[in-house]
Amino acid sequence: MARIITLATDFGLEDEYVGVMKGVMLRRTQDLTIIDLSHAIERHNIRQAALLIASAYRFFPKQTIHLVVVDPGVGSGRKLILLQTDGHFFLAPDNGVLGLLIGPEHFQAAYEVQCSQYFLTPVSPTFHGRDILAPVAAELAAGLDPEAVGPIIDPQDLGKMAIAPVIFDSIRKSVKGEITGKDHFGNLLTNIHAGILENFSQAEKARARVSIGSVTITGIMESYFQKALGEIVAIVGSRGRLEIAVNQGNAAERLKAGLGDTVAIKIPRR
Amino acid sequence: MARIITLATDFGLEDEYVGVMKGVMLRRTQDLTIIDLSHAIERHNIRQAALLIASAYRFFPKQTIHLVVVDPGVGSGRKLILLQTDGHFFLAPDNGVLGLLIGPEHFQAAYEVQCSQYFLTPVSPTFHGRDILAPVAAELAAGLDPEAVGPIIDPQDLGKMAIAPVIFDSIRKSVKGEITGKDHFGNLLTNIHAGILENFSQAEKARARVSIGSVTITGIMESYFQKALGEIVAIVGSRGRLEIAVNQGNAAERLKAGLGDTVAIKIPRR
Amino acid sequence: MARIITLATDFGLEDEYVGVMKGVMLRRTQDLTIIDLSHAIERHNIRQAALLIASAYRFFPKQTIHLVVVDPGVGSGRKLILLQTDGHFFLAPDNGVLGLLIGPEHFQAAYEVQCSQYFLTPVSPTFHGRDILAPVAAELAAGLDPEAVGPIIDPQDLGKMAIAPVIFDSIRKSVKGEITGKDHFGNLLTNIHAGILENFSQAEKARARVSIGSVTITGIMESYFQKALGEIVAIVGSRGRLEIAVNQGNAAERLKAGLGDTVAIKIPRR
Repeated sequence: MARIITLATDFGLEDEYVGVMKGVMLRRTQDLTIIDLSHAIERHNIRQAALLIASAYRFFPKQTIHLVVVDPGVGSGRKLILLQTDGHFFLAPDNGVLGLLIGPEHFQAAYEVQCSQYFLTPVSPTFHGRDILAPVAAELAAGLDPEAVGPIIDPQDLGKMAIAPVIFDSIRKSVKGEITGKDHFGNLLTNIHAGILENFSQAEKARARVSIGSVTITGIMESYFQKALGEIVAIVGSRGRLEIAVNQGNAAERLKAGLGDTVAIKIPRR
Repeated sequence: MARIITLATDFGLEDEYVGVMKGVMLRRTQDLTIIDLSHAIERHNIRQAALLIASAYRFFPKQTIHLVVVDPGVGSGRKLILLQTDGHFFLAPDNGVLGLLIGPEHFQAAYEVQCSQYFLTPVSPTFHGRDILAPVAAELAAGLDPEAVGPIIDPQDLGKMAIAPVIFDSIRKSVKGEITGKDHFGNLLTNIHAGILENFSQAEKARARVSIGSVTITGIMESYFQKALGEIVAIVGSRGRLEIAVNQGNAAERLKAGLGDTVAIKIPRR
Repeated sequence: MARIITLATDFGLEDEYVGVMKGVMLRRTQDLTIIDLSHAIERHNIRQAALLIASAYRFFPKQTIHLVVVDPGVGSGRKLILLQTDGHFFLAPDNGVLGLLIGPEHFQAAYEVQCSQYFLTPVSPTFHGRDILAPVAAELAAGLDPEAVGPIIDPQDLGKMAIAPVIFDSIRKSVKGEITGKDHFGNLLTNIHAGILENFSQAEKARARVSIGSVTITGIMESYFQKALGEIVAIVGSRGRLEIAVNQGNAAERLKAGLGDTVAIKIPRR
């Protein structure tokens, strides 16, 4: 069975960089299915890449190898790591880009990538994705034992990624979270997980007040179509988190809201 | 033999949405070749998507499964359908996006997608491409009988797509059509099929007057190179329809013309 | 073993053109791995495409078939060619786009593509990539003998591509080259190959003065991190040539420099 490798980078698609990484992998083994997750991550935006890979990986089969190359520190002393968690493999710089995946839950192992016998030579000081991560990914796909990649790293020593915690006040029936990004449609993504909203009844969700900046909307909806065209909707989106959308419009533009802005939910008394 | 699945969406390539749909399909079967047709369809532009899939599908092998996800009605009551026509399979919302493919000619069958045992659970109210269409496409690729997808729909009941008809006046030797879009090069695409131009002799084509707005050009050419650099050319393009191009320039900008503008052909007397 | 085909075009990704070329190839054989190198080459920019394919091809396995479709002369009399060099195959218009690959070093053979029995019919006058190059690439992948593609062409008769030569003055210890492009990150690419810099000692590189326009920077570095954030760096990039970068910034914007600008290196006395 061919192994699957996914790619998430900030390389864009204008240059040959992404194609060349695929060439390097195919030179080692052609028994591969390579899938692009995104190459339009904002340059050096580790947080955006961390959120993207954390949302995306679980839709792939176990044993998939995910390469995440957002690497402002290429050529500095930062480590490259192989993380094995939840049945998946992740290769990335140790700069926090895998930080949302390192929890006690599904953690299996982490290794520092030091198997230089598989690197391209010479290793370019500016493109470790091509010269180190791509060939190591292909070796793993071809059957290399993860332990052969390099020494074990204690998960405590790995780069972390802090997402502002979501605050749930069970007495005041309020939730405070933040906007973590926006998508192609202008939908605003938040860190408020569907699980937190399970603390509210259907009736409470229906009358919930959701505030972003000076805008307050009423109700956490099940579908865009519970609001009219052009109205703002709070809805659990396809990532399993609260999103703020405009029914067939662009919420990010409409609300002039973005990364880090506070999203507050209150349940008014009846 | 691996089955081929094509994807045409308005999702863009910034987010992980397209990659994640591929992951869902690969989780069911890896015996797939997945091809991107376009993810840059204008948001919610059903007409653009309908024209694109109608132009593109015939270049793929029979039995290819085409997913078209331009779905402004996601979460409303609109149906999802499987259309089998001309030896190909199409999965899409029933919103007209397959409307140019539903004719008596090659029609084989249409089904409403109701095989919820194959859907991801829970089905997100905002991303049926991932949660319904992708897993059903993968099931079909893995051998599911189309009849197992859901109940048969009468083609009369499917969403239609109207393209303004092309008017051919055989007495006045004139044709009236319209612009249906523009491509990456700024070439203006029309609905005037090459077959209609077969009503004219070579000599008539050579002296034909083609008008768009206030601009009139002479001659329907065989090649850009029958006109000088920078000149406007009317030519049967690679979609088998009349296109208005500028030899190494951008016709859409030059003519300030676009979707829905009238294109008129007249054959002057000698 | 599936054959690999790479694609480099100026088609963009909005339209179905790239997907349709893949469909044509898959209709002939599904035993293919198709890799996108770039579809964002500037329209009709033969030089940019020539540099891209010359940088990229060597990262792929031998026997890879590279399609390069930047073809302002489509429909004119220009030839289509198959070039076999360094163990790779290249299909492209004979307009110089393969001009950097035609040297005495690794040259094996060149053929004019004339095997019209494999072309789509009718051949569109505007899309030879789809109607000629794609089906011929697929035939080659399926085992067609290169000699069956058409008559042999003398390499002297192929379209050339001139890159301004790099001038090395061994007495004055100076190098003069030029900027050949910029990448997604705003890094400025030059034609100054790492081999030329081997004429300098480490100490000489450290005190080298690199001038672009009115800006002069000191030192040819091994890593971005030998300069502070936001500083301009001259470094041998991942293509094996001198690049001008800004550590976590955009050199093209910062220096307002671009294609064809002179890059001069001088080694001052100690």
